[in-house]
Amino acid sequence: MTDEATAADTLLDGDAVAIAAAVRSRRVTALAVAEAALARIGARNRSLNAFTDITAERARAAARRVDEAVASGRDPGPLAGVPFAAKNLFDVAGLPTRAGSRIGRDNAPATRDATAIRRLEAAGAVLVGALNMGEYAYDFTGENAHDGPSRNPHDLSRMSGGSSGGSGAAVAGRLVPLALGTDTNGSIRVPAAFCGVFGLKPTYGRLSRAGAMLFAASFDHVGPLARSVRDLAAAYDAMLGADSDDPALAPVDPVPLSDRLEIDPSELRIAVAGGHFAANAAPGVLEAVEAVAAALGATRRVELPEAARARAAAFVITTVEGGNLHLERLRARAMDYDPATRDRFLAGALLPAGWYLAAQRFRAWYRARVLALFEEVDVILAPATPLPAPPIGAQTMTLGGNTVPLRPNIGLYTQPLSFIGLPVVCIPGGRSPEGLPLGVQVIAAPWAEEKALAVAAALERHGVARCPELPA
Amino acid sequence: MTDEATAADTLLDGDAVAIAAAVRSRRVTALAVAEAALARIGARNRSLNAFTDITAERARAAARRVDEAVASGRDPGPLAGVPFAAKNLFDVAGLPTRAGSRIGRDNAPATRDATAIRRLEAAGAVLVGALNMGEYAYDFTGENAHDGPSRNPHDLSRMSGGSSGGSGAAVAGRLVPLALGTDTNGSIRVPAAFCGVFGLKPTYGRLSRAGAMLFAASFDHVGPLARSVRDLAAAYDAMLGADSDDPALAPVDPVPLSDRLEIDPSELRIAVAGGHFAANAAPGVLEAVEAVAAALGATRRVELPEAARARAAAFVITTVEGGNLHLERLRARAMDYDPATRDRFLAGALLPAGWYLAAQRFRAWYRARVLALFEEVDVILAPATPLPAPPIGAQTMTLGGNTVPLRPNIGLYTQPLSFIGLPVVCIPGGRSPEGLPLGVQVIAAPWAEEKALAVAAALERHGVARCPELPA
Repeated sequence: MTDEATAADTLLDGDAVAIAAAVRSRRVTALAVAEAALARIGARNRSLNAFTDITAERARAAARRVDEAVASGRDPGPLAGVPFAAKNLFDVAGLPTRAGSRIGRDNAPATRDATAIRRLEAAGAVLVGALNMGEYAYDFTGENAHDGPSRNPHDLSRMSGGSSGGSGAAVAGRLVPLALGTDTNGSIRVPAAFCGVFGLKPTYGRLSRAGAMLFAASFDHVGPLARSVRDLAAAYDAMLGADSDDPALAPVDPVPLSDRLEIDPSELRIAVAGGHFAANAAPGVLEAVEAVAAALGATRRVELPEAARARAAAFVITTVEGGNLHLERLRARAMDYDPATRDRFLAGALLPAGWYLAAQRFRAWYRARVLALFEEVDVILAPATPLPAPPIGAQTMTLGGNTVPLRPNIGLYTQPLSFIGLPVVCIPGGRSPEGLPLGVQVIAAPWAEEKALAVAAALERHGVARCPELPA
Repeated sequence: MTDEATAADTLLDGDAVAIAAAVRSRRVTALAVAEAALARIGARNRSLNAFTDITAERARAAARRVDEAVASGRDPGPLAGVPFAAKNLFDVAGLPTRAGSRIGRDNAPATRDATAIRRLEAAGAVLVGALNMGEYAYDFTGENAHDGPSRNPHDLSRMSGGSSGGSGAAVAGRLVPLALGTDTNGSIRVPAAFCGVFGLKPTYGRLSRAGAMLFAASFDHVGPLARSVRDLAAAYDAMLGADSDDPALAPVDPVPLSDRLEIDPSELRIAVAGGHFAANAAPGVLEAVEAVAAALGATRRVELPEAARARAAAFVITTVEGGNLHLERLRARAMDYDPATRDRFLAGALLPAGWYLAAQRFRAWYRARVLALFEEVDVILAPATPLPAPPIGAQTMTLGGNTVPLRPNIGLYTQPLSFIGLPVVCIPGGRSPEGLPLGVQVIAAPWAEEKALAVAAALERHGVARCPELPA
């Protein structure tokens, strides 16, 4: 390798903001970084199976534009030259949007990038490809019946988590410092936790979903996965803003996070979630939360009321909204679905409307109760998953001494939060007894992303939140 | 009768604002007006069957409080001494809230008045009773299997219209100048049209529904029926304002209407609705709309897209939301429902959730298209009902040459408007060939009640909108 290629490759072990600083200060070219990322993908993707599409020519062209901006003294953007990739449910001009499906491979190529991709590129980032995911995002494992599972860089025999499994694997595996995911019931937080990286699920309605294939429209969120808190903030800031193409986007002022990471967490009231969130965890999971709480000096406890019902209602709404969204496709091509996905969508198409309304009514009740909790506390800590990454192919898990189906129960702690659109930063916090990464959810009130980010940043400064080293 | 009793009785042939002026200027006491109203109810309700409850003692006490305020120089309120009554789905402290049902008679008496009643009384109005209605508001006829039909004062053999049938009959019959109704798919506008009075269905989310028994929560509106436009405005103004007890209330500034009735309608762009709203009407119905348009010099035409689908979607959402709201009650006491009501609620409990979501998705599409029309026009005119009041007991009607079920089709022209919460003033406009009243809907964009009211007021000044004389 040339010196520049070596420098670029080394930068890929660091974070996105460091890459952008190096590109902006001409220590490395964006093209060299893009080539380094493409080389890593070429070398490592065979084992990780994180990428389903590599956009090498597009990446080189984008990197050259960044380098031209730098050369001509124009601002190349805060993410100048940062290679990133997107879960393959985001539209990428020229690629069929597959959303993890076999059916999607037959789609006409997208004619336009999704808003999130467009905005990251406008900030100087360089798209290098599209990422593996659970079919139609209806997944917590990262397995995929058509593309094969994305694999956990910490143990290739283990799940990446899903549905943004390729996003977690690509970031944890150092193929890219930044990836886009989506989260309906936990699809950013679960792979972040299993793979030991940071993930941000913003407030519902905060970031545009235009050009991303929806799953359950009243729950779907777009967000970044990265290996530092400042990278989450930089990506979030780049994606902020109004977008008439997403009717769910809330008309709230965009508040950038990058300059708000220094909030002193001792000024925040931080509590640990008890009850539902302190039960049924595998060894090490609750200890990881307690270690984070201890580092913050947080001794409060709060209980989210009826969290188990929140999960039940989330299942109903997800399957109904998903089943409705897929109805025409199910009628036409049911046998081309992953069987596990198909059967749940079909169930959703058959549930009575009264169940859906009852779930939505409970949701309003639950939202009001949880919002009231945020009058007493600013940030709540909870585990991300009830267990570390299970072996690929596992079908069951032990929960409170009982053997239960694995897939639905991975979302035990994530579903009751996305159910009402709370912003959550998932931080890597400690390891399980078997040495696997564990995640902790840092939860704030709607529109208070900066509080969760500030707590995550403080934990990162203190070395409590950090991406674990990969095995040699 | 004493002179004061005669004066009070005569005032009941006029409007509410005139009564309040007489009370405020001490020309008559509120007590005398209340007694006159109670006497009229006693004399005329046997034939009209408009009232199910008479709150005589409460009315006398309220009237005395108004008179004491007048005597002591305090402001008795803009509706001082105005007798009014409320559809019996509004909570009245001390009465079981029956909502037209047999089951409701077994309810414990309400402990608190509905917000709308409380606010009218705070403005000096005097509640004299509760009004007959179609069971659980699922009705366009004013018939009631338990209480008997309320009857049309213009022809006692004819329907009052529903579901606020007692409200229409009581106001048209001069028992009270003002009544409260609710409108889900037309339940204020249909009885206003059949009985030849004015009705106001405000923008969805404008007036508090707290303490009113809901029917289909995403469609239900509270509003007044009266015999003058200024009365509609005065009642609306009294009911305006925030109310934490109604979660559907929109956080918009209350804009009183009473001082905005003089807007010159020649400054407004007024159009007649074509397509769906200009087809399938009985003789005289469209001519009434054209007469109103001619009086306003309105020559524009607009077409609301897919209004027939809007109706279909309104049926689905109504039955699903209603069925869900009634589910526990149906399980416990199905056989105590009016059979027609029961079967529709049961159907709603069984419809698949996908139908509901499809209807809601269409609703968003339709709302956007109709709102775009309001960039071109300010006010739209349409007929209120496809026919004048049918005979009580009628089961079918002729629509476009076909014999169709009567009940659902009475809402042909009202449903596509409440479907997206548009404000509508229903004005009495002309008579049918058989001499029955006809109604015209004056429709504005959301939150633009003042434009519809101003057009109605201008039509009233020109004698085009007026309550027809009762038969001798």
